Amino acid sequence: MSILINGQAADSISVRDRGFQYGDGLFETMAVIEGTCPFWERHMQRLQKGCQRLQLPFPDIALLQAEAQTLIQHETRAVLKLILSRGEGGRGYRYPEAAQPTRIVMRHPWPDYPQRNGQAGVQVRFCNTTLARQPRLAGLKHLNRLEQVLARNEWQDAEIAEGLMLDEQGNVIEGTMSNMFMVKNKRLYTADLSNCGVAGIMRGYILERACNAGMATHIGDITKKQLGEADEIFLSNSLIGLWPVNRLEGQIFTVGEISRRLQALINRDYPLIHV
Amino acid sequence: MSILINGQAADSISVRDRGFQYGDGLFETMAVIEGTCPFWERHMQRLQKGCQRLQLPFPDIALLQAEAQTLIQHETRAVLKLILSRGEGGRGYRYPEAAQPTRIVMRHPWPDYPQRNGQAGVQVRFCNTTLARQPRLAGLKHLNRLEQVLARNEWQDAEIAEGLMLDEQGNVIEGTMSNMFMVKNKRLYTADLSNCGVAGIMRGYILERACNAGMATHIGDITKKQLGEADEIFLSNSLIGLWPVNRLEGQIFTVGEISRRLQALINRDYPLIHV
Repeated sequence: MSILINGQAADSISVRDRGFQYGDGLFETMAVIEGTCPFWERHMQRLQKGCQRLQLPFPDIALLQAEAQTLIQHETRAVLKLILSRGEGGRGYRYPEAAQPTRIVMRHPWPDYPQRNGQAGVQVRFCNTTLARQPRLAGLKHLNRLEQVLARNEWQDAEIAEGLMLDEQGNVIEGTMSNMFMVKNKRLYTADLSNCGVAGIMRGYILERACNAGMATHIGDITKKQLGEADEIFLSNSLIGLWPVNRLEGQIFTVGEISRRLQALINRDYPLIHV
Repeated sequence: MSILINGQAADSISVRDRGFQYGDGLFETMAVIEGTCPFWERHMQRLQKGCQRLQLPFPDIALLQAEAQTLIQHETRAVLKLILSRGEGGRGYRYPEAAQPTRIVMRHPWPDYPQRNGQAGVQVRFCNTTLARQPRLAGLKHLNRLEQVLARNEWQDAEIAEGLMLDEQGNVIEGTMSNMFMVKNKRLYTADLSNCGVAGIMRGYILERACNAGMATHIGDITKKQLGEADEIFLSNSLIGLWPVNRLEGQIFTVGEISRRLQALINRDYPLIHV
């Protein structure tokens, strides 16, 4: 059993589910390490914010945790995906009168990313698909992911680990499945996500750790030109931890001291995430 | 039986379907009149364009038509919704190596919109939720519909039939479930949809009929101010036909001659659509 839908072992949902009809819902993708989700609280906080913004009823968190536990308790390393949709409804965008959200927890195998990604770093490219500015959805991990689908399928080259997406103004926002940071003159920069992008759990964690460690951090606009002049660039998400970027569209970058320091902090707190 | 999934009577899909996971797919909502879909060819053309732009395999059209026919042949008036998703996949935005699209045809009852909507017209409002600029998805009827969901749920007043959505630049683009036209000095205007919006089948039909009838038509930007100065405003979609707007946020509009002429043309070709 690797999927629970509203607490029952199952693998299908109603075709009338608004998650399918409209992408009307949210999801979380969590690392499972030694039978637990190390970032569980942070994921639940983001889910709760998402529920508030989409006016979705927030599920019973103890129930959710019990269901997650059933799936992951014997797993050394795995991925837990949680999906919360507005549930079944008739035709039309209006919320159903008494929405019964659909709650899905599903376990996936740990992805087989090459170990060298965290060590030697990865090669990345720019995507042509832009991220549209939509303040009402920005930051959320919602089920409308066609932009990421189109962007990820712009390249087939297995040597390229990730693609960076820009907004229409030319600011570099994030990767298709990760957030992006750059370091310049010992300062850490990452994109402002008030108009588009996903506020990644690992991004939040890195920003906190960097602040606590006394690093200067800055959230704002990052142009392609500024990125090209960076001392270090790296990517983050809950599963990869921190991947340094060693090449961006032909330009070579060095895996720098700040990337290594932050990796060491993640490693100390969560030793298994990106090994 | 009112739903066929890949040709089989069913009402559930895999939770792994990319339509549910990412909104990775397209849909069409069609009027059924006397056992057929009067705009079938136009819907298939839009679906085909959508498939090209999302790199989705286009289904066997004869098969699709046979499946649709099974559901609608005895229906005097109904709604046929067709959904085409990229089918099942693993975790991650990358297309599955051999995508097996999911093909769904489902029949719904004809909606019970009040008859007066087409005759006396409807009251509409402006929504706060904007339409994000995304040229790669503009025009398509894809499954990422959170903007429409949020916009439609901004009001509960049953007297308000539709909400108009603007882009970030302040151009009025369309309604949550309809396209919008305005008339000024006998010229017909509707919004340019190259950056956002859905290219409605009825919108295309009205533009063609207006051109054929010798009316001056113009596709471009329409500001709130221009809309406020319009001689006539109306809404269109495949199910409602043409609804004149008689009130927009407190301002009264007259149901004008051009709205009536276009309604008469729709009525002549498709007598049952908006009666």
